Amino acid sequence: MTDVLYLQDLTVGDTFTSGEHALDTEQIIRFAHEFDPQPFHLDDQQAQGTFFAGLAASGWQTSAITMELLVGSLPLAGGVIGAHVDVSWPQPTRPGDVLRVTSTVVSVAPSRSRPDRGMVVLECITANQRGEAVQRMTSKVLCFRREG
Amino acid sequence: MTDVLYLQDLTVGDTFTSGEHALDTEQIIRFAHEFDPQPFHLDDQQAQGTFFAGLAASGWQTSAITMELLVGSLPLAGGVIGAHVDVSWPQPTRPGDVLRVTSTVVSVAPSRSRPDRGMVVLECITANQRGEAVQRMTSKVLCFRREG
Repeated sequence: MTDVLYLQDLTVGDTFTSGEHALDTEQIIRFAHEFDPQPFHLDDQQAQGTFFAGLAASGWQTSAITMELLVGSLPLAGGVIGAHVDVSWPQPTRPGDVLRVTSTVVSVAPSRSRPDRGMVVLECITANQRGEAVQRMTSKVLCFRREG
Repeated sequence: MTDVLYLQDLTVGDTFTSGEHALDTEQIIRFAHEFDPQPFHLDDQQAQGTFFAGLAASGWQTSAITMELLVGSLPLAGGVIGAHVDVSWPQPTRPGDVLRVTSTVVSVAPSRSRPDRGMVVLECITANQRGEAVQRMTSKVLCFRREG
């Protein structure tokens, strides 16, 4: 995919598959130190006695990696600009996981007041190398309309 | 606040106010390079002609900083472990913004099947130095019950 996509190019059911992001212990700990400094995200030994029973990535790191993968796989004109998201993490992301995002267009709604744009709802599933969902996200994104 | 909080310690309406995080251009560009490499998050000049009309932080960076501020202000026993969130970004976070999070307990529900825990719903507002909300989040978090 080299061309950018406008509102008219998107149809309910369209699917986009991202590239991959391989996550390792160093990335998990670095992110956690900056944004989510809790024992289960910082140290495998300390994580053993917690809810996660071993080192797990911050859910927000899974979200940030999902965004990285979306930016590379969803060539919307004007960029990928989210307005509202609903996110759940059905299971933890672990060191060694290789993440991939599959995005499906759920709705396409032209704006009534702004003829140059609309809103698109995407269902984005972030899965690990075993195909298990580590994040489910419904995202409402801005989408511009091709002129003419 | 030095003691950790258990499910029994939380009441609807309880409020927690975080410390502050001052965001600058360097942090915004560094995060964007890693997770959200789009012109409006990478370069102030390129951002001028976009929807944001100037450099703006990735929404996911605002979320990650919110988590950092929550970890410092919400001393839940067992940690701050989110299961499901609903997030919107009413306006962009900009270089120079100083963020602060106010969290309010919306509901407290003991688990029926697991007597040692429950779920707490929090409304977390991330505001800038002018008191304008840059993120609104409803977050369902795991909370452990004090024994005995």
